[in-house]
Parts: sequence; structure tokens; C-alpha cells
Amino acid sequence: MAQKPLHELTATEIIAGRHSAEAVAQSCLEHIARREPAVQAWQFLNPELVLQQARAIDKRSERGLLQGVPVGIKDIIDTADMPTEYGTPIHAGHRPHMDAACVALTRRAGGLIMGKTVTTEFANRHPGKTMHPMDPKRTPGGSSSGSAAAVGDRMIPLAIGTQTTGSTIRPAAYNGCVGYRPTWGDLRLAGVMEAAGSLDTLGLIARSVEDIVLYRHVLAGEHGAVPALDAGKAPRVAVCRTQFWNDTDAATKAAIEGCAATMAKAGAKVSDLTLPASFDPIEEIHQRISSFEFARNRAWEINHHYERISKTLRENRLKHGLAYTFEQYRGARADGEKLRLQLDDVFRDYDIILTPSAPGVPPVGLNATGSAAFSSIWTLGHTPSVTLPLYSGEQGLPVGVQLVARRDRDHALFEAALWTMRAHGR
Amino acid sequence: MAQKPLHELTATEIIAGRHSAEAVAQSCLEHIARREPAVQAWQFLNPELVLQQARAIDKRSERGLLQGVPVGIKDIIDTADMPTEYGTPIHAGHRPHMDAACVALTRRAGGLIMGKTVTTEFANRHPGKTMHPMDPKRTPGGSSSGSAAAVGDRMIPLAIGTQTTGSTIRPAAYNGCVGYRPTWGDLRLAGVMEAAGSLDTLGLIARSVEDIVLYRHVLAGEHGAVPALDAGKAPRVAVCRTQFWNDTDAATKAAIEGCAATMAKAGAKVSDLTLPASFDPIEEIHQRISSFEFARNRAWEINHHYERISKTLRENRLKHGLAYTFEQYRGARADGEKLRLQLDDVFRDYDIILTPSAPGVPPVGLNATGSAAFSSIWTLGHTPSVTLPLYSGEQGLPVGVQLVARRDRDHALFEAALWTMRAHGR
Repeated sequence: MAQKPLHELTATEIIAGRHSAEAVAQSCLEHIARREPAVQAWQFLNPELVLQQARAIDKRSERGLLQGVPVGIKDIIDTADMPTEYGTPIHAGHRPHMDAACVALTRRAGGLIMGKTVTTEFANRHPGKTMHPMDPKRTPGGSSSGSAAAVGDRMIPLAIGTQTTGSTIRPAAYNGCVGYRPTWGDLRLAGVMEAAGSLDTLGLIARSVEDIVLYRHVLAGEHGAVPALDAGKAPRVAVCRTQFWNDTDAATKAAIEGCAATMAKAGAKVSDLTLPASFDPIEEIHQRISSFEFARNRAWEINHHYERISKTLRENRLKHGLAYTFEQYRGARADGEKLRLQLDDVFRDYDIILTPSAPGVPPVGLNATGSAAFSSIWTLGHTPSVTLPLYSGEQGLPVGVQLVARRDRDHALFEAALWTMRAHGR
Repeated sequence: MAQKPLHELTATEIIAGRHSAEAVAQSCLEHIARREPAVQAWQFLNPELVLQQARAIDKRSERGLLQGVPVGIKDIIDTADMPTEYGTPIHAGHRPHMDAACVALTRRAGGLIMGKTVTTEFANRHPGKTMHPMDPKRTPGGSSSGSAAAVGDRMIPLAIGTQTTGSTIRPAAYNGCVGYRPTWGDLRLAGVMEAAGSLDTLGLIARSVEDIVLYRHVLAGEHGAVPALDAGKAPRVAVCRTQFWNDTDAATKAAIEGCAATMAKAGAKVSDLTLPASFDPIEEIHQRISSFEFARNRAWEINHHYERISKTLRENRLKHGLAYTFEQYRGARADGEKLRLQLDDVFRDYDIILTPSAPGVPPVGLNATGSAAFSSIWTLGHTPSVTLPLYSGEQGLPVGVQLVARRDRDHALFEAALWTMRAHGR
């Protein structure tokens, strides 16, 4: 018997324990019933549909890699049996006729789709209803707000979010989760609302590095055993404080310095890295690309429902995005590609960059979702990154540390992440 | 009064003539009524809905860039007022709840969505019902079969297709159209079924280069005047016969040699180009990437409707795609990126590559859609290309010539295309 209640188990523990999908789902539902009034992580959750799925999974003759694991799906990702509303009243009640590729791959592996987690409006900045599980006056982060809050609050072990700027890493860090943004292009986005295709990726949120490795394997459509992680080799680490360092709170500065010291003590070669001046306009480049694409992707909503789009979205991203010319967009895209090649060069000397996941603990105020400054570089860089829940700040609120690897080195990133957890005795 | 019937006008001519949307639509509908039994270009066409739209367009206070121009939409592209069936009975009757970005941008510019054009199954190889307008025993090409046949047969002046291998260039060439595949990433694909995102682009089909320039401008979401083309400067041309040259018919060989000679005579610097041996495995690289992604994107259909997928698709692309590991896929993606950088180098010495659009005239037989050999290189290369309807073969069937430019040089490609038309007295 597990000591912990089933809803607190990680995916890996659920599978190792061969728990029935129904028992796990029941435990999660009970915890959700207790906690949802204070957290509001779910846009759609039907307990009856959850239990039906669970019983069907328990009857399958073959056990899948995610057998009986409850998963939350960000509400910009299509589900055939649940509404998908993109965080806007414009699409209230919309029910897709098929599952997104990532949802179908999850179900094929025996995963249980628990429900749809709250997203900001169109995965942009205008917040949904979710509150931080530890303090209802604070934001859970965005745009994958509900996914991160639900995993952090032990409602579910795994969730899918997305990231176009910092929409997975930031909320995962705020909620004490492990968050993962894959190398751009690795995991299919069919059936996921496009925010800005040149930057969009899925984002995975869990409570252990092993769970992230497992779920990535499933979503890549792999068949064999989950690849083993070798956490024995100390990485070469570059501490990158970035141009946003002065905006970080004391807990974040302490987390990065503490993590660097712990890694060095455990045998890592740790150096400081200052990015070249060419990285200074990174937010402007990211903003041009994402706003240009976002504004065109919302053409139908602009044609038919402009007044129902939030003022924030209309007056910022849409206004800017619509004003950019194609030549300005193309220029920004070329600048982005140059920075990617420069980042590849940086990684000749380092395995991992250590950098904040966010400027600080989740801020007070529910009308915004915090700053994505510490993600836009790596998102534009198409690099994989994880946030690890290793530190905390005021009120015990979580402070994550972010590890970034070279494009295509997701597996090395996972090994370094596990090594870092071990170095912290976790 | 135009000498030609309205349905034969190009988009540019419709706009210049300030024809009413209703009159143009009526003419197109009458021609379609005559010809559709022999061509079968349309998956969905409702004359009443067309005329309703036309009247609404005629009432708009501002004239758009595509004012009153009828457009055909490939049936893998979402439309809110018409079904979208992806060329498969699995999705029969499916009606999306919103328009794809490209459809919404078309409507915003005053374009009239005529109907949905026939696609092969999931924009892959299994053919739809469309026949070649000049010979019902021959294929119109695929996968944008209906889009190309409808434009070639003067049912509509403009259509959107897509290209993942050769699905726009080949059918456009077979049907005597101008076809255009943009630089990968330029035009948004939100609301378009993903075949293989690393390769997918929209494809535009028209009867003049000017119409392509106009429509690209609209779909890029540009606001200003359509950019003017300077067709005065002779391009530096590389004739690239490729490793597939021996598979071409006599008419295709004659078209390429004839085009090269005409271009040289008109003042172009024309040289022969042999691609390095690194390009030899191009089809294998393309196949790995496209099959890996395609098979994962169809996860929902595989889960729920495997037996309703055509045998061709199951036993070829899906079987191979599912068998590839992520490491094999990643290797192919890296190979593709290397070839793209090599192609960039090739274009230091040339403005334009001249190459066949297809191995020959549209082949006899309706159970296949012809060879994409002459497109896979450039599709993988992410380069823009056009096919120009300048030659013909047996029975007067069209033979296109393909011009390819460096990534991001779509405007230079259009100027070279117009220059080439002029050099041929067109």
C-alpha cells in the first residue's frame, strides 16, 4: 500500500504501483472536490466522464505506458468529448469533433483525460479564473494557469500546457512543479490552437523529472521502453543572469546563487555567462514575431467578434501585430535565426545554462500573470528548458530554477535536471 | 464590356473592371454547372450560399483588395459556413465552427469563398473524384486536385491548396495554371489540417503571376498597396535537371531546354547546375520527416477509424511513419537543415533555378496523382517556387516549368517569373 494518498502520486509511481485507473481517478476527484473552490484550475471537469474513462482503461487488455495516469489538458487543445473554449467567451461551448494529436497519443498510451484546465484568453495575457493554490490573492502564472495549479496542488500528476513566450516555465515555477518546454518542433501541435507557430511548443508539467521523460516519450509517439537517464555525470554549467537580473527578487537571486554553489560542490564546472550584446533586443524580436503571427491567426475572431476580445489583447498584441508589415516580421525572423546560431555556439562550452524561471515568487494581483522575461530568450532560441522546484521565497512560495540545453539535446537536459535534483538531495 | 466572359477573367482583371461580385459569381456558377459533371472539382458548392455572399460583398462600403473575386478552398482548410472533410469518409459532414486564418483573411479583403475543392485523402496520395479537365482518363494531379482543376478549367480565378511534397506545383502544372509555394513559414496555417508541419505550406493557384502576388499580399495580412513587380531585369538562371531527369518525357525535356534557350536569348545568364551528391538521398529524408509527423498527426483517426483509412495510406505512409523512431526522425530533420544551408550557398551564384514542375504531362489513370519527384527537393529546402504554364505536350496537355528562388526571396521570384512570361511573349 502506498503511504501517500493516490492523488499525491507521480505518474511513475502510479504505474509502478499498478494502481487501477478508477481508484486513482476517484482519489483525484475527491481532492479536486475539496480544493477546486479555492483554486479554480478547471474549465471543464465531469466526474462521471472521468470515471467512465477510468473503467474503460482498467478493462484494456494491454497496459499502456501511461496506464491509468490522470492528465489535465490546457483548454486551447482539442478534445472530442469535452468543450474547448480557448479562454474566451467567443468560443464558449465549442466542442471539437476530434482529439488533438497529443490527446489521442495520451489516450492510446492508457492516459486518462481528467478535464480541461484554465488558460488565459487565447493563451495570451488576459487571465482566467485560476488562483494560486497557496494564496488566492496571487496569480498562478499563465498562460497554462490551470495546468500548473492543478499539478502543483496535487489534483493530477501530469498536465499539458503550451509555451509561446513563458507560458509553461513560469506557471510551473510559480506552482512548485517541474515544467518542460521541448526543442521547438519536436512534439506535434495538430489540434492545438496556434498562437504563433514560429515559437509555439507544447509544455509538460509534472512533479518529477522522470514523469516528464515518460510523457515526452509518449507524445513523441515512441514505442520502445522509456529511455533510461544517467544522472551520474556532472554537467558543465553556465550561470546566465541575463539583462533582467536587476528585476529579480532576493529569493530568486538566492536560488540561482545557491543552485550554482550546490552544483559546483557536487562536481559541476560552473562559470558565469554574459550573453553578447546582440541578445539585448530579444524581447522586441520575440514580440514582433509573436504579435505578427498571433494577429493573423485570430483573423476570424477579429472579423466576427472584435468587441468580445479583451481590451488588453486588442490594445496590445493585436494592435501591434496588425501594424507590423511583413518585411518587419521577416526581419525579426531573420534576427531570431541569427540568435539561434549564436546560442548553438554558446553551447559548445557548456552543457547547461542555469537561469531564473521567473523574476520572483508569484506576484500578488489576479489581473496579470507575471513576467515572461526569463523565458523569451530561450523560447526564441528554440532550446529545450526545464524548471525545477528547488527553492522558495516569502510565505514559502515556490521559486524555480531553469536549466536550458542546446537545441535537440532534450535528453541531456533531462539527465542534467536529474543530476541537479540529486545534488540537492531530492 | 469585357470581351471574355466574366468567369474567364483573372482576379486582377475582375478588380480592374470593378465587376460586381454577383455578376462574376453568376458567370462562374453557370460555367461550373456546365463543366462540373466532367471535372468533379468540388467537394462542396452551394450556389445559393455563393450568391448570398456575393450580394453581401457588393453591399460593403469599402472595396477590398480581393473585392468580388471567387476563390476555391482546398477541403483540408476550415470554413465556418461549409463542411470540411479532409478527403476522407471519416470526417464526412464535419463543419468547423470557425474559418481558417487564410479563409478569414480572404473574406476580410472582399474575396468570395466559392466552395470547397476536392483533395486527396488527408492531402496524401489516395485520389479524390476529380478528373483532368482536358481528358477524363487522366489525373489532375494531387493533392490539391480540385483547386488546380477548377482554376485551370476557368471555373474560378484563384484557389488555395497546400504543399507538403508537390501538392501545389504538380497539379497546377498539370492543369495549365500558375502555381506558387511560398517560403516555408510565411503564410499562417491556423485552421489548416496539419499533414507534416515541418514541410507544410499553403499553395496558391491562379492563371497569372500578378494574381499570385495579389493573393499572397492579402494572405500575409498586409495593408498597403500590392507591391509592384519590376520585370525588367534578366535573372541569373541555373538549369537544374536533377537526378530525376531520366524519368521525364520528351515534352518536359523540350520545355526545359526551350525555356533555357528563350531566357538566354532574352538576356539571362543561363548555366547548368548539378546539385552535390549530398542531395541524392533527398526523397528518403523528405519521406522520413513527412511520414513521422503525418503518422503522429493522424493519432485520433488511427485510434478510432483505422479501418476506414485507405489501404494505400495505411500500408505506406502510416506504416513507415509509425515505424520510425524519434532519433531517425531527428536525424532526417538535421539532414534537411544541412541541405537548406547548402541550397542557400547555391543561390549565391544564381537568382533562379529552372527545373521541371513534373516528369511529364498528366498521366493516364485515376488511381494515382503523378510523381512529386521534382518538388521534394525544394519543399524540403523551404524555398519558394512557381510553376508557369508555358509549354505543352501530347494532346496539347500542359507542361509547366518551375522556377525556384532562395528562401525569403519570394518577391524576386515573382519578378523573375514575370520576366520569364514576358520573354515568352506572354
